[in-house]
Amino acid sequence: MKPKLFLSLAAFAIMSMTAMAEPANVQTYTFPTPYQVEKIAPPKGDGKVKNVILMIGDGMSLMHIEAAWTCNHGHLWLENAQYTGISKTPASNRLITDSGSGGTSLATGYKTRYHAVGVDSTGRPLESLNVLAHKAGKANGIAVTCRLWDATPCDFVAHNLDRNKEQDLILDYLNAPLDYVFGGGAKYFEHRDDGRNIFSELEKKGYRVARTLDELWRCKSGKIYAVPYPVDTPVPAERGDLLAKASLKGIDLLNHNKNGFFMMIEGSQLDDYGHFNQLDMLMQETLDFDQTIGAVMKWAAADGQTLVVVTADHQTGGPTVLGGDYHTGTVQVNFSTRDHSGTMVPVYAFGPGSENFTGFMDNTEIFWKIKRLLGL
Amino acid sequence: MKPKLFLSLAAFAIMSMTAMAEPANVQTYTFPTPYQVEKIAPPKGDGKVKNVILMIGDGMSLMHIEAAWTCNHGHLWLENAQYTGISKTPASNRLITDSGSGGTSLATGYKTRYHAVGVDSTGRPLESLNVLAHKAGKANGIAVTCRLWDATPCDFVAHNLDRNKEQDLILDYLNAPLDYVFGGGAKYFEHRDDGRNIFSELEKKGYRVARTLDELWRCKSGKIYAVPYPVDTPVPAERGDLLAKASLKGIDLLNHNKNGFFMMIEGSQLDDYGHFNQLDMLMQETLDFDQTIGAVMKWAAADGQTLVVVTADHQTGGPTVLGGDYHTGTVQVNFSTRDHSGTMVPVYAFGPGSENFTGFMDNTEIFWKIKRLLGL
Repeated sequence: MKPKLFLSLAAFAIMSMTAMAEPANVQTYTFPTPYQVEKIAPPKGDGKVKNVILMIGDGMSLMHIEAAWTCNHGHLWLENAQYTGISKTPASNRLITDSGSGGTSLATGYKTRYHAVGVDSTGRPLESLNVLAHKAGKANGIAVTCRLWDATPCDFVAHNLDRNKEQDLILDYLNAPLDYVFGGGAKYFEHRDDGRNIFSELEKKGYRVARTLDELWRCKSGKIYAVPYPVDTPVPAERGDLLAKASLKGIDLLNHNKNGFFMMIEGSQLDDYGHFNQLDMLMQETLDFDQTIGAVMKWAAADGQTLVVVTADHQTGGPTVLGGDYHTGTVQVNFSTRDHSGTMVPVYAFGPGSENFTGFMDNTEIFWKIKRLLGL
Repeated sequence: MKPKLFLSLAAFAIMSMTAMAEPANVQTYTFPTPYQVEKIAPPKGDGKVKNVILMIGDGMSLMHIEAAWTCNHGHLWLENAQYTGISKTPASNRLITDSGSGGTSLATGYKTRYHAVGVDSTGRPLESLNVLAHKAGKANGIAVTCRLWDATPCDFVAHNLDRNKEQDLILDYLNAPLDYVFGGGAKYFEHRDDGRNIFSELEKKGYRVARTLDELWRCKSGKIYAVPYPVDTPVPAERGDLLAKASLKGIDLLNHNKNGFFMMIEGSQLDDYGHFNQLDMLMQETLDFDQTIGAVMKWAAADGQTLVVVTADHQTGGPTVLGGDYHTGTVQVNFSTRDHSGTMVPVYAFGPGSENFTGFMDNTEIFWKIKRLLGL
């Protein structure tokens, strides 16, 4: 036998092992810190919708919910949803969408191209719910755990056919009428190829820029940019209940506006750990988002005029639950892809107007329903 | 290099190829006969529920719906559902259920053990919606495409901790107060270890036993057993719209009862092709079931007092949509398992009372809601 043939065979054997391990990507995880979940009584108001909080779990499909529900011993705050629906998510040019196109449909009511943010498929800028809320005299904001140049926040703020134009996207924040911003991504506000310092420019426009969490918690009023991290926020084990706290802080500030507010909150990193096929972190991010949902629903129930809509832009990772036990919080998952996959995603709604979010709907309809309910 | 090592390496390379191909079970299918779907106007009645038709897609998850929707060029009859909810499906002793336990919860309102049919986890017989409808003076029936000793029909008819006791399960049909039965499985009615002929015994109890479809279509009234096939019904390409026709025939017969009726209809073989990881047949079965849903919803809309509830018992095959194009009806799917997988499954409801089937619910709650709405 020739050495070359031997080497080829050996190389092939090793390559095969790698390829074999990749598709059947089975992982097991036990959630170490299950939390209590309460039944939240829906508000008994006149059905008027003053505020809307749209919460997006990036890449969060029904299988993510099943896995997270199993991890948290058969309970989720999300189960307080009064109505549930099913959202169809294709992009204008692809069956399987991304956070750019999928989130743009939620933000603006139009289908657009894969990888576009805040524009239609020809590149024409679209007005988001944040802009329309502002024009209607309401306050508006966003809170995310990712960098602010990531696709989902940019769907509501920026306008670009290419979600990867990171520094250009940050420039668009200057022209967006936002009242509250929380997220990571300080890097491209201040270390830019064009030499500009966007934080300074925002301050000149009347914003307070909080670079630490302490600074944010001290804010009592005014227009705020809270950007305490250069890129993404830390992992859940390090950041604790930061998304819930930053969301409630934003809600508190936006709620100063007597006309009401629109806010988008994202559980951003579910998507990343779906791409990485990393079950432990995926569950931690999903359950962190669920606890944020609980905090927001409790606030909305007390307020009585706030509609909470929770949904996803697409699915990531194709997780399939192969086994587990909700008594122990253990789940076994097979990831079917490292990319997005095509599935309709559920819509979950709580509060006045929630009855509009059941049955099948196109993802664009979520925008039009919210617009109508807020009178924008 | 020693020949043995070469052989080992070669064998390993071949084994690796096999193992690699199996877990990443990617298949592509184009549906050759897309069908038109109409928008069905919901009935404008007084909300009274006289009849309930419960339709079970065996193993039919939201990913099945996404794949089928893509195959049928972005349209499904199912989309006429007025309300949608989310059903939690665990068995009493397992996170991931089967058609025995999952279907028993739908049929009787109780959790039970994996593989049990029509009994609680101690083996105590439970009364199904069919029995309760009969006791309330209503008509009742079932229509399935599988053999009648299969788990789902048996959940509504039989009582056994072991769904595999095929001949015992068929015996239980003798004691069930059914008015209409359509399905396969003649084999264990007449070729039995105990030498009994169950068809003859049913005839003595006043049933008409139709052994051919022509005989069934000719029936105008009375209590009918239509069992034209020894085991399962033929595949969709051969049987055509048989499930829709046999369901409508049953509805027509049951509707003679002035007090109303309860009927269970199953798209049975979705589950089989999920287990086989056979995309072409899985899509054909799913789309056959969707067309049956359309026929039933149209009947219900015209009737005005009929609630249609569609759901699944569990998910089979873990299909993940990796690509496709709803303009061409092509879909690419990766199957993640050859077994059942754990996911919450949607509930879809049309007609009076459908507003009760949104939000999260345990699968047992579907029984209790139907029982209450029918006044059983």
